[in-house]
Amino acid sequence: MRALHFDGERARVVERAEPRERSGHVLVRVHLAGVCNTDLEIARGYMGFSGVLGHEFVGHVEVGPNALLGKRVVGEINFACGECAACDSGLGRHCPTRRVMGILDADGAFAELVSVPVQNLHLVPDSVPDAAAVFCEPLAAAFEILEQRAVRAGERAIVLGDGKLGLLVAQVLHTAGAHVLAIGRHADKLAILRARGIDTRAAQDWAPAKAEKADVVVEATGSREGLALAMSAVRPRGTLVLKSTLAEASALNLAPLVIDEIKLIGSRCGPFEPALAALASGAVDVGSLVSQRFALAKADEALRRAEAPGVLKVLVECG
Amino acid sequence: MRALHFDGERARVVERAEPRERSGHVLVRVHLAGVCNTDLEIARGYMGFSGVLGHEFVGHVEVGPNALLGKRVVGEINFACGECAACDSGLGRHCPTRRVMGILDADGAFAELVSVPVQNLHLVPDSVPDAAAVFCEPLAAAFEILEQRAVRAGERAIVLGDGKLGLLVAQVLHTAGAHVLAIGRHADKLAILRARGIDTRAAQDWAPAKAEKADVVVEATGSREGLALAMSAVRPRGTLVLKSTLAEASALNLAPLVIDEIKLIGSRCGPFEPALAALASGAVDVGSLVSQRFALAKADEALRRAEAPGVLKVLVECG
Repeated sequence: MRALHFDGERARVVERAEPRERSGHVLVRVHLAGVCNTDLEIARGYMGFSGVLGHEFVGHVEVGPNALLGKRVVGEINFACGECAACDSGLGRHCPTRRVMGILDADGAFAELVSVPVQNLHLVPDSVPDAAAVFCEPLAAAFEILEQRAVRAGERAIVLGDGKLGLLVAQVLHTAGAHVLAIGRHADKLAILRARGIDTRAAQDWAPAKAEKADVVVEATGSREGLALAMSAVRPRGTLVLKSTLAEASALNLAPLVIDEIKLIGSRCGPFEPALAALASGAVDVGSLVSQRFALAKADEALRRAEAPGVLKVLVECG
Repeated sequence: MRALHFDGERARVVERAEPRERSGHVLVRVHLAGVCNTDLEIARGYMGFSGVLGHEFVGHVEVGPNALLGKRVVGEINFACGECAACDSGLGRHCPTRRVMGILDADGAFAELVSVPVQNLHLVPDSVPDAAAVFCEPLAAAFEILEQRAVRAGERAIVLGDGKLGLLVAQVLHTAGAHVLAIGRHADKLAILRARGIDTRAAQDWAPAKAEKADVVVEATGSREGLALAMSAVRPRGTLVLKSTLAEASALNLAPLVIDEIKLIGSRCGPFEPALAALASGAVDVGSLVSQRFALAKADEALRRAEAPGVLKVLVECG
């Protein structure tokens, strides 16, 4: 089969053997897969991964239990052992021996077929087209924030960054009833949020005023400056959610965290159920986030395109 | 009156005018005051403070309402406005226009008399001697952790640092029922904890094993290395409490916070009630923490002594 393979140095579309059948796994024929910033970081050496890239996908079950054959599915990316203390306590996403699709010891979804543990699958409602379902994984990551920190109606939230994740996070906090202010550098991206009734400000013109400080601030710029700005935008005893894995170490003065007793929460993968429900109800707009589509044969180009400034979600048509 | 005054460059014992009477304030004649690491940082220029140093004290009310005259008191150090949104919501410790005793716009307690808002006072039970009551403020800062993050019996906690604050924090978490492991560099200081039934390990020999990762880790070393070590000692989805205001910016890789979805909580001043109760019941040993006492006339020497390696609490006899 065709797949986008990263050999530790370069990402290339290659011919690979189909994934072997594996107990407890199904083979999913991939329809669409999305490029995530993590893919770009991995292709720069983050995580020391080599294998097939990609972890955002929608497809149908081609090899697996009869009851699932042909069903349209999305899949969670952490392959947990199912037997350790973390798994027992429902935290399979933190299983210490987990493999992670396209990220750690498991081939990913920029391929014709991908192997997924059956318990990681979620059925996609008929009303959700592939082009929306492919957003389930990153949208789940946005919903993770609500799982880690209850957001009450009327709370003030600031989202820093108008990239793919920032746009999803702002919408999710908005659906939770928060008064969201989204800060970004791109007028066209912020317009997507304004169309949903979300306040936005151009990052170039904005510094957090004392009276504007928020109950919850989400750092989704992926930059060092973003984190410092985020710290200055949270009210005392407020919550700062860190959504980006900055690969490099940054020089940070953490004294404000202590003085204002801020809660800094690292946040990664999230629950698929609320994400699928939001896609089905249309509560979150993902269609406006698609910048371009590529055929699988040009998946390496898709990766490069996704790196270009101003580009949002790039999708790869895998089958 | 005599007082230890910091002029922005040097801390010196000087003759000063007595604090003027001020509406809503009492004048406390200070019996004992304790040297805190924050005092040492301030004397190096942190906070840009100038004035009388010191914020840990016990004394008696000399000028104030009749009902309080002669009463032995300790006092909270944040002087809140009482009228803003933060104050209304019970977070006077975070009042944006607060003054802070010996730290920000308010003279401190290394003096014969100190001015304190009447609502900041707590009466000291007769059973608590001055030498214990003077620990109320730092012990309250240790209890702040329980206010920010409920600690359940049987949870695993690691406290990094066997300085004054680390020794108080380890004891407070122990009284809350946590299984505490205290890590420090000084055998004599760790012995204080072992005498209370708390596990300890020498920092020199210790690195967090995977199986040892804790639900709650408290960083009380005040060092950059401490924070990195703390991150590696928390379990996924666990809590890391940051107790030190490191004045300098540190190069930190925060990716582990995101990957393991750790909650990093900055923690500062705390509630006096549980601290006084613990001093009254003897649940926390503070007597063993006193290294030396100085007369107020030698308070500058006291400050220098407190900086010496291995020294724990230095007390100043003010009257």
